[in-house]
Amino acid sequence: MVISAPSGGGKTTIREKLLKRDKRFRFSVTCTTRPMRPGEVDGKDYYFVTLKEFRRLRSGGKLLEWASVHGNMYGTPVKSVMTLLKKGLIPVMTIDVKGARSVKKIFPETVTVFLLPPGLKTLVGRLRKRREPAANIRVRLETAKKEIKEASFFDYLVINDRLSEAVGDIRDIADIECMKISRKQAEIQRFGLELLKFRL
Amino acid sequence: MVISAPSGGGKTTIREKLLKRDKRFRFSVTCTTRPMRPGEVDGKDYYFVTLKEFRRLRSGGKLLEWASVHGNMYGTPVKSVMTLLKKGLIPVMTIDVKGARSVKKIFPETVTVFLLPPGLKTLVGRLRKRREPAANIRVRLETAKKEIKEASFFDYLVINDRLSEAVGDIRDIADIECMKISRKQAEIQRFGLELLKFRL
Repeated sequence: MVISAPSGGGKTTIREKLLKRDKRFRFSVTCTTRPMRPGEVDGKDYYFVTLKEFRRLRSGGKLLEWASVHGNMYGTPVKSVMTLLKKGLIPVMTIDVKGARSVKKIFPETVTVFLLPPGLKTLVGRLRKRREPAANIRVRLETAKKEIKEASFFDYLVINDRLSEAVGDIRDIADIECMKISRKQAEIQRFGLELLKFRL
Repeated sequence: MVISAPSGGGKTTIREKLLKRDKRFRFSVTCTTRPMRPGEVDGKDYYFVTLKEFRRLRSGGKLLEWASVHGNMYGTPVKSVMTLLKKGLIPVMTIDVKGARSVKKIFPETVTVFLLPPGLKTLVGRLRKRREPAANIRVRLETAKKEIKEASFFDYLVINDRLSEAVGDIRDIADIECMKISRKQAEIQRFGLELLKFRL
């Protein structure tokens, strides 16, 4: 599952709450060249790597997607996703629109969710709370303008008004996605075979 | 919303429970040339019409879909669906696979659900309870064989094991379908406009 949002859209908060409340979801850690923020842990929030290391991973085909965002590099190691999928868990990726496209191309069964705050005021308020300088906020809003134009690429839109409701919505999306016919071929074949063998 | 199932799949029971539990859903009554069964009410369960009346409706373009099932004609009047849609309600149609295809062609935003009992034994048990003669049961199982091959046309598969759970699943499907980006264009445009007008 891919969750994208404009900066300040609340994707990190949502992700953390989601992982806490539902053990099917697991964070697939991305690597980044951006500096660690206070409170962040290497290997948990991100793999913090140098630009040289990042380039080596990328050219070695070890990244499912990568993007340069606000001058920093971000990438999802294929390995973190595959490890979770093999265990029957749902890898959660909080990445940008470009990254969402790349992941969907490689794994078409990916469910993509676009998060929006209930209004622009909330978004700006969240960015200010993070004490981002005005220039940064401007850059992030410009990015948001571009991203919103691509929102129709996503499968779902979740309005991030109340946190616990938004988390509930994402869990429900996963439940309902499991009922998609495309994910139910085994059940249909089993029933079809029963029908073929049946004698009244 | 279109609900299809093999005969005995429980679509009528599910529909009735669904309409009782959730007022967003409304039955869009179909017309049929088949004889009324004990307990059925004209205009509520079906519009019972003669073959001549049915043909007049069909040739007049008044039917959204129509099909001949086990020697009887069934059809959904366009009017019953439009009336509900205009009120913001969800028309529920319990029709066969062919009908589901016709409706989806005309209204691509239709959500299609295929119901299956947990196993063939349950299906046959339900048909026997209805006191259908063995020959009829055989015909219905032959139809089921054909229908199951077309199951992949549907959007969702709901296993009708416990009635209240299956009804809950269908309600959840409707909730989650409302979060589909394709149904959220207004919200996205509103946010995009806010962003365009914003000055920091």
